[in-house]
Amino acid sequence: MSMKLHILGCYAATPRTLSNPTAQVLEIRNHLFLIDCGEGTQVQLRKNKVKFSRIQHIFISHLHGDHFFGLPGLISTFRLLGREKELHVYGPKGIKEAITLLMKLGNSWTNYPLIFHELDSKESQIIFEDEKLTVTTIPLDHRIYTNGFLFMEKIGDRKLDVQAMAKYRIDKQYFGEIKKGSDYTLPDGIILTNDQLTLDPPPIKSYAYCSDTGYFENIIPLIRNSDALYHEATFLDSEAHYSATTKHSTAKQAATIAKKAEVGRLILGHFSTRYKNTEPFQAEASTIFNPVELAEDGKVFEI
Amino acid sequence: MSMKLHILGCYAATPRTLSNPTAQVLEIRNHLFLIDCGEGTQVQLRKNKVKFSRIQHIFISHLHGDHFFGLPGLISTFRLLGREKELHVYGPKGIKEAITLLMKLGNSWTNYPLIFHELDSKESQIIFEDEKLTVTTIPLDHRIYTNGFLFMEKIGDRKLDVQAMAKYRIDKQYFGEIKKGSDYTLPDGIILTNDQLTLDPPPIKSYAYCSDTGYFENIIPLIRNSDALYHEATFLDSEAHYSATTKHSTAKQAATIAKKAEVGRLILGHFSTRYKNTEPFQAEASTIFNPVELAEDGKVFEI
Repeated sequence: MSMKLHILGCYAATPRTLSNPTAQVLEIRNHLFLIDCGEGTQVQLRKNKVKFSRIQHIFISHLHGDHFFGLPGLISTFRLLGREKELHVYGPKGIKEAITLLMKLGNSWTNYPLIFHELDSKESQIIFEDEKLTVTTIPLDHRIYTNGFLFMEKIGDRKLDVQAMAKYRIDKQYFGEIKKGSDYTLPDGIILTNDQLTLDPPPIKSYAYCSDTGYFENIIPLIRNSDALYHEATFLDSEAHYSATTKHSTAKQAATIAKKAEVGRLILGHFSTRYKNTEPFQAEASTIFNPVELAEDGKVFEI
Repeated sequence: MSMKLHILGCYAATPRTLSNPTAQVLEIRNHLFLIDCGEGTQVQLRKNKVKFSRIQHIFISHLHGDHFFGLPGLISTFRLLGREKELHVYGPKGIKEAITLLMKLGNSWTNYPLIFHELDSKESQIIFEDEKLTVTTIPLDHRIYTNGFLFMEKIGDRKLDVQAMAKYRIDKQYFGEIKKGSDYTLPDGIILTNDQLTLDPPPIKSYAYCSDTGYFENIIPLIRNSDALYHEATFLDSEAHYSATTKHSTAKQAATIAKKAEVGRLILGHFSTRYKNTEPFQAEASTIFNPVELAEDGKVFEI
């Protein structure tokens, strides 16, 4: 199944007239997942015509303002729009206290269930799972506790081979079991093995979101072979001296991670607003890994 | 002296693609005062080319998100821009706890002095004063503790009558005292009274900001004769039934207050986003009081 990634904002630090702090929406298996929520995200959701009442799960990487200060407003807007559906927020420990305090001060409690899933583990863990997919944390190396997120489809049921079903006159009532992998016994006792009856399920896709982080090889086993990796690249190599102190990456470092993890494609984002032009990020990264694409506010990637 | 009022946002509730929640900047006697700070205010400051490093005093009326959720981001942006000057924030009790918690969670403390002036009095009080002006709270009637603010210039020194100075050959060293109101004794003992030596100081101006509030006559003595009154008008009279429960005003109610307080002019704002067109607000209010003007994001009023 294909995924769609809407970039709402992909710049570091502060919102500006033409650039927004980090937020993105991943459309995957009938979900709209919001990933990070910098100031102005609700306006970006409207501008990008994302049906945001459909958002039920919000993943916050860390509690720096440029990834998080749009959340109180979005939660409050959901209330004003008469939301009734549950909203789940996954983020670092402390996020519940912050949002709750703001609601208390405004005496503006939500009239829908708001459920916090606070994270404090430094080990990778599954934080969301349904029949179709899992979301797993990717512990990152930043100045404060930070997680990336790996969105991975589950291997689906095997596909029925329609011709085989017809040939052996197999009744519909057995389809469910066969898709799950069962063999089938014909009336004459001959056993048809599952591989005679089914085709491989569609290949699964995965998307890894890694922002903010310094160069951190520990993430490689977690993101290996992802179809797409969004990796922050706040700096160019010429500013690599800032990288270690701020715990941000350069385009070169992001590409090195992409190469070592053998991902399908690399999307760079979280550009420092010091750079007027982001093309040098692509040029720098593509000396190490390809294909490289640049995030851009309003851009949609099909994965 | 003239004041300039920059409307950064003047809509109720949530930020939208084309309308921003409440924030305005008052230029008065060499100050840039920020009044309320809804989400997106820092972008609005940039769009409106307000030199926002010059802001040293921020006045927050109440802790509903549409007046306040832009403040954490603005405080954090000042830090990133390397601000060193003091920043003073005046707002309801609790504002310090909220901002401090957000800074703690992000481990992002300001490197400039951030000084909170928390308000909890239900009586009007002077909260800022310098040689040129005062800022006084206007307790309002809203769902949570809320203050409007009255910005009032002080009567300045009397103006020297240059011709009189020349005629009587008065030495410069006496100018200061004469401007303060002193008489002057000529060498022959004749006393020149101050009114022979000076002219009236320029007239003082005042601006009253009242948002959010239901219809509340208690504010009339506080805002009487203000040169300009910004009064919220969330609803039209046709939706007056919402007014009492939400503690917001209609255009008619705002105009009635303006009339009873005999202000110089009325500026309406805080329009509910349910209204596509704000002209009926002007039409409705002007049946009761004139002149009425409509706030509009990006508009500048000379007062």
